[in-house]
Amino acid sequence: MPSGAPPSPTTPLLTLPGGLTVAFERRAGPGFAFDLRLPVGSAHDPRGLEGAGGLLEEWLFKGATTRAGRTLDARGLQDAFDDLGVRRGGGVGAEATRLSVSGLTADLPAALHLIGDVLIRPVLPEGELDVLTDLARQDLEGLQDSPTDLLAIEARRVAFPPPPGSPFAGFTHPASGTPDSLRHLTAAPLRAHLGRYGQTGAVLGVVADLDPADLLAHVTAALGDLRPGQNEPVPAAFQPGTQAHVTEEDAEQTHLSLTAPGVAPTHPDWLPWQIALTALSGGSASRLFHAVREERGLAYAVSASPVLLAGQGFLSVYAASTPSRAPETLDVLHAELARLPLGLTAAEFQRARTGLTTSLVFSGESLRGRAGSLTRDVALFGRVRPLAELRAALDALTLDDINAFLAGYDPAAQLSTVTLGPDAARPARTVEAACA
Amino acid sequence: MPSGAPPSPTTPLLTLPGGLTVAFERRAGPGFAFDLRLPVGSAHDPRGLEGAGGLLEEWLFKGATTRAGRTLDARGLQDAFDDLGVRRGGGVGAEATRLSVSGLTADLPAALHLIGDVLIRPVLPEGELDVLTDLARQDLEGLQDSPTDLLAIEARRVAFPPPPGSPFAGFTHPASGTPDSLRHLTAAPLRAHLGRYGQTGAVLGVVADLDPADLLAHVTAALGDLRPGQNEPVPAAFQPGTQAHVTEEDAEQTHLSLTAPGVAPTHPDWLPWQIALTALSGGSASRLFHAVREERGLAYAVSASPVLLAGQGFLSVYAASTPSRAPETLDVLHAELARLPLGLTAAEFQRARTGLTTSLVFSGESLRGRAGSLTRDVALFGRVRPLAELRAALDALTLDDINAFLAGYDPAAQLSTVTLGPDAARPARTVEAACA
Repeated sequence: MPSGAPPSPTTPLLTLPGGLTVAFERRAGPGFAFDLRLPVGSAHDPRGLEGAGGLLEEWLFKGATTRAGRTLDARGLQDAFDDLGVRRGGGVGAEATRLSVSGLTADLPAALHLIGDVLIRPVLPEGELDVLTDLARQDLEGLQDSPTDLLAIEARRVAFPPPPGSPFAGFTHPASGTPDSLRHLTAAPLRAHLGRYGQTGAVLGVVADLDPADLLAHVTAALGDLRPGQNEPVPAAFQPGTQAHVTEEDAEQTHLSLTAPGVAPTHPDWLPWQIALTALSGGSASRLFHAVREERGLAYAVSASPVLLAGQGFLSVYAASTPSRAPETLDVLHAELARLPLGLTAAEFQRARTGLTTSLVFSGESLRGRAGSLTRDVALFGRVRPLAELRAALDALTLDDINAFLAGYDPAAQLSTVTLGPDAARPARTVEAACA
Repeated sequence: MPSGAPPSPTTPLLTLPGGLTVAFERRAGPGFAFDLRLPVGSAHDPRGLEGAGGLLEEWLFKGATTRAGRTLDARGLQDAFDDLGVRRGGGVGAEATRLSVSGLTADLPAALHLIGDVLIRPVLPEGELDVLTDLARQDLEGLQDSPTDLLAIEARRVAFPPPPGSPFAGFTHPASGTPDSLRHLTAAPLRAHLGRYGQTGAVLGVVADLDPADLLAHVTAALGDLRPGQNEPVPAAFQPGTQAHVTEEDAEQTHLSLTAPGVAPTHPDWLPWQIALTALSGGSASRLFHAVREERGLAYAVSASPVLLAGQGFLSVYAASTPSRAPETLDVLHAELARLPLGLTAAEFQRARTGLTTSLVFSGESLRGRAGSLTRDVALFGRVRPLAELRAALDALTLDDINAFLAGYDPAAQLSTVTLGPDAARPARTVEAACA
C-alpha cells in the first residue's frame, strides 16, 4: 500500500532451478531496490573462528571476476558499483547475511551481475586480509566504548548459550568476532566457509518497474550459477531465569536488558503478540513509556521489541537509568511485564491496533524497505504477506482475542536479565527477590 | 520524483496572515506527513539556562486546552495522539525545534489541531518539571557514556564559541542543558522562553492528498492563532586553527573530529561543494573511505558531511581509530583535505554526480522525508527546490565547474580539530606540525 502507487501486485514466488527464491513486487517509478538474504550469519561462524562471516563479507568485495572473464581488483569493483550510482547496504546479522542494492532501474541488471560476480567468482586476495582483520579489531574496540552494544551482546550470550557439541559459535559474539578468534581467521578457513553461501534457503526480494519474466531472466543470468550452499539453522535454546552483571565502573548509567519468550512468526498468536507489544511500548501512551519515563522519570529511553531467532520470537526490553535508580527501574519493568496476563483495556487495544494499521501503510512506502520486507517475509513467514491481507487480519482482531492470548502469556516468569554499569548499584538482588 | 507518483505538483508557498509559511506538496495515497519547524533551537537557550528549549519542548506535551475549551492532562494528550494512530517525531536541534506528525489523511486536521493546542494553549503544569529535569539529567549522563556524542558537542563548542555579549548560549552545550543549568530551569524562565515560539520564521511542510485550499483552511484553524514569536538567528563565528583534546583514559578508541568552512546553501558554489563532498566521502570509491579504511585499515568508520549553521555551510569530518594509530589517521585525513584544491578526476566527478542524482530520486520517496525536505528547503534556501530542477542543475555541471570551485577551496588550511581518547596517544602535536 505505498502512497501514490496502485495496490501492490503480488507476483507469485519464483524459484531458480538452483533453489534461490525470488520475491518480486512490480512498482511504477524510476528506481529499483533489491535485497539478497543468504541464510549464513554470525551464528554460523565455526567455534573458535568467530567473525568468519563478518570478515568474509568484507573480503568478497575485495575483487571479483565478471562472467565475461574480466577481473576487477578491490578498487575496480568499488568503482564499478559507484559508476552505477547505486547504493549498497546490508550486512551480517546473527542468522543471515544481506546484500542490498538500490538505484535507477536501467542499472538493475548490472548491479545484479556485480553481486553475482562477488558471490560466485570472488578473487579473495590474501594480501587484503591484514587490513580487514585490523578493521574488525577496530570495530571490537569501538564496541567497548558503547555500553548499549556491549549490553546487547552480553544479553544474547547469557540468554542463548550454544548447545553443547554444536559446531557453530551461535549467538555469543559480535559479528566482528573476538580478539582471539581474529588471529585464527586465515585464508583457508575463510575460503571453506564461503561454501555455505549459496542458493539453498536464499531469498532475493526485488521491487522495480519490470516485467516479471524480464526480472527472472536477469536474476538467472546473474545468480543462476551460484553454488548450492547450505541452509542449516542454528538452534536458539533460551535460558529462562539467567542473570548477569557486567561491571563498568566508569559508566554514568546502568543499562538494563530483559529477554523473555515470545511468539513465533508462524504461530496464530503472532498478531495478538504484536498488539500486546505495541500496547507495552508502541507510543507515548504505551505502558512502559508511561510507567518508566512519564510518571517516574526513571529512564530517558525505554523500549520493548520483538527479536526473532531460529524461527522463534522473543521479547527484548531495554532501559538505561541513573545507577542509584536502576533497581527501581528494574522493578517497574518487571511489574509491567508481570501484569500483561491481566490483559489490555479496550482503549489500549484500539490504540495499539490503530497504531499498527498506520505503520503498515507507511511500511510499504520506500523501495528499500519494501524489498527488505519481501525477503524477510519469505524467510520468516514462508511467503509474502500482502499488506491488504495484514490490514484485514488486524481489523478482524478483537479485544477478547488479545486477552485470551495474554491470559497465557507471562514473560515476567521466564526472564533472562543482564545489567551493565557500576558495581555499587548492581541491581541483581532486586531481580532475584522479584523472581522468587 | 517519488517512485510510483506523478511528478510533484509544486504548489506556491502559502503564508498565513500571522507569518507562518506553508510549503505543500499534493501526493495521491492514504497517508500524510507534516513537519513544523520553529526557528528556536538549543542555540537560543539563554546563557545560564542551557537546556531551556529542550525542557520546554517536553513540557509543552504535558497538557493543553483545545479550541473548544476542553483541557487535556499529560495522559489525555498522549492518548489523543495515540488514538489517531499518528506517529510523532521531530525534536530540538541547534537552530530550530521541529514538531512532525504522520498518519492517515483523515486524521490530518485533528493532528494539526493537537499540535496547535500544544503550542498555543499549553497547560505547563509545574508539578511535572521535576520529572522532566530528571530525564534531562539522565540524558546528560547517557551522553557521558557515548564518545561520539561527547566529541560532537566538544567539536561544536571549540569551533563555534559564543560571541562575547550575546544573550544566547549558542552552540556550546547539548540540547538537554548542563548539570548546572538544569538547576535554574524553573517555571518562570521557561514560560518566558515560550514567547519566542511563534509564526515568525516558522515553516510548515505538508505532503498529503488534499486540495490546497482545504489544507490552508485546516492550517489556519489550527495554527492561525499562534503568537508572533521571534526569529532571531544566532550567529556562528567559526574559529579556524583551534584544537582541543578530551581525555578519556578508558576509551578503547581515539575519536577525531575536524571542522572547516564550507559553502552556504544560497551560494552558487553549493552544488559544486556537494559534488566535492560526495567524491570525498560518498561511496565505497570515495577518497576518505579508500585512503583511511580500504588502503590502511586505520578506522572502521570515516565520513565527511556538511553541517549548516547560521546560514553558512561547514565541513565536518569524523573518524575513530586505535589510539596508537590516531596520529596517522589524522595525518591521512589532513592530506586528503589538503589535496582537494588540486581538483577531481573526470571519473570521480562522473561518479559523484551519478550518486547524487540517484540519491535525489530516492529522497522524494517517503512522505516523512519529503515533508522534512519541504520545510528544510524553505528554511535554508528560501523556497522549495523542485527535484526536477535540482536534477537538471546537476546535469548541467561540468568537471571544470567543480575544479574551478575547488581551486579556491582549501579546508585543510582552516581546520578546527578536536580529539577524544586516552592521553597517551593524544594526536595534537601531529596536528600542529601538519598545520605549520
